[in-house]
Amino acid sequence: MPYVNIKITREGATVEQKELLIAGVTNLLKDVLGKNPATTVVVIDEVDTDNWGIGGERVTVRRERGQ
Amino acid sequence: MPYVNIKITREGATVEQKELLIAGVTNLLKDVLGKNPATTVVVIDEVDTDNWGIGGERVTVRRERGQ
Amino acid sequence: MPYVNIKITREGATVEQKELLIAGVTNLLKDVLGKNPATTVVVIDEVDTDNWGIGGERVTVRRERGQ
Amino acid sequence: MPYVNIKITREGATVEQKELLIAGVTNLLKDVLGKNPATTVVVIDEVDTDNWGIGGERVTVRRERGQ
Amino acid sequence: MPYVNIKITREGATVEQKELLIAGVTNLLKDVLGKNPATTVVVIDEVDTDNWGIGGERVTVRRERGQ
Amino acid sequence: MPYVNIKITREGATVEQKELLIAGVTNLLKDVLGKNPATTVVVIDEVDTDNWGIGGERVTVRRERGQ
Repeated sequence: MPYVNIKITREGATVEQKELLIAGVTNLLKDVLGKNPATTVVVIDEVDTDNWGIGGERVTVRRERGQ
Repeated sequence: MPYVNIKITREGATVEQKELLIAGVTNLLKDVLGKNPATTVVVIDEVDTDNWGIGGERVTVRRERGQ
Repeated sequence: MPYVNIKITREGATVEQKELLIAGVTNLLKDVLGKNPATTVVVIDEVDTDNWGIGGERVTVRRERGQ
Repeated sequence: MPYVNIKITREGATVEQKELLIAGVTNLLKDVLGKNPATTVVVIDEVDTDNWGIGGERVTVRRERGQ
Repeated sequence: MPYVNIKITREGATVEQKELLIAGVTNLLKDVLGKNPATTVVVIDEVDTDNWGIGGERVTVRRERGQ
Repeated sequence: MPYVNIKITREGATVEQKELLIAGVTNLLKDVLGKNPATTVVVIDEVDTDNWGIGGERVTVRRERGQ
């Protein structure tokens, strides 16, 4: 029954990577807390780098500097 | 003043259906808790089926199996 | 499979009122979008009135003015 | 280390406006609570006006009325 | 820089279990997407079973039936 | 109409500090995007340091090290 929301910048995550995230988080909740995978929900949000800020600036700017 | 966030998979919800969700949730909060509709906010997020996991797999995979 | 998050101020919602919210939202999603109630998740967050702002001020202050 | 999520309707916010929001919120948390800007995260979600409801109706409808 | 929110029912998760969730999710994001653990944020919300609904009813009711 | 959610660790934020956050964010959205303060909602979540992870560990552990 857990609900997990993963927010990452939109920078080309593949379907295979999303599958690994979904399966990995679901297994983690089963292993650590005994949660039933059948009702574990995982939602991945991909956010434009212009809309994600850290250190007071857009991620786009950091990427342009190579960070 | 309530804030309601509805997350559904992006599978063709129409404008009319969204109106019914917005009006329905707003009325529910008025009827049950006496909340003022004028300041009740409802935000609907439509999530790609590749980005929504349940049972450890993507919804896309479940849809392909007819689930 | 929908996920709904309802945020309200913590002002004494009863268990019966929470049941009505959970059942009401679940039915609404079934009626409007055909969503399966068995996997519809509703999470209610009750937020202290000091931690909820509208119009630039805490709800606590509005309540003291009778709003 | 704070995490701030700003949800607004998608109505043409520019990159410069997003920069002002990110910098402004980050500075506010530093000034008020002494939070370290280096680990302050700000995520801006832009929501279609058909998916945002207030007063029981879509924002799109309000905009058509000039509100 | 990812942000992960894990919502579970409040049913006695220990500090050690929370550590395993935080470390596990952080490692998963590093392994799958190469994300930097230093800026990966994980927030765990524990929700009262009266405030969590699935199948149109409170989790409290399900627990009383042994589910 | 914006909705802003501020998540911070629960480490003694005062009512006055919460007021400054609420007023500050509301003014920022008015100044940058022309948003109406009357319908701007700000919700502050205070999260236990055991439930907040960064760098793969609980904030509690970092605080014990003086970070």
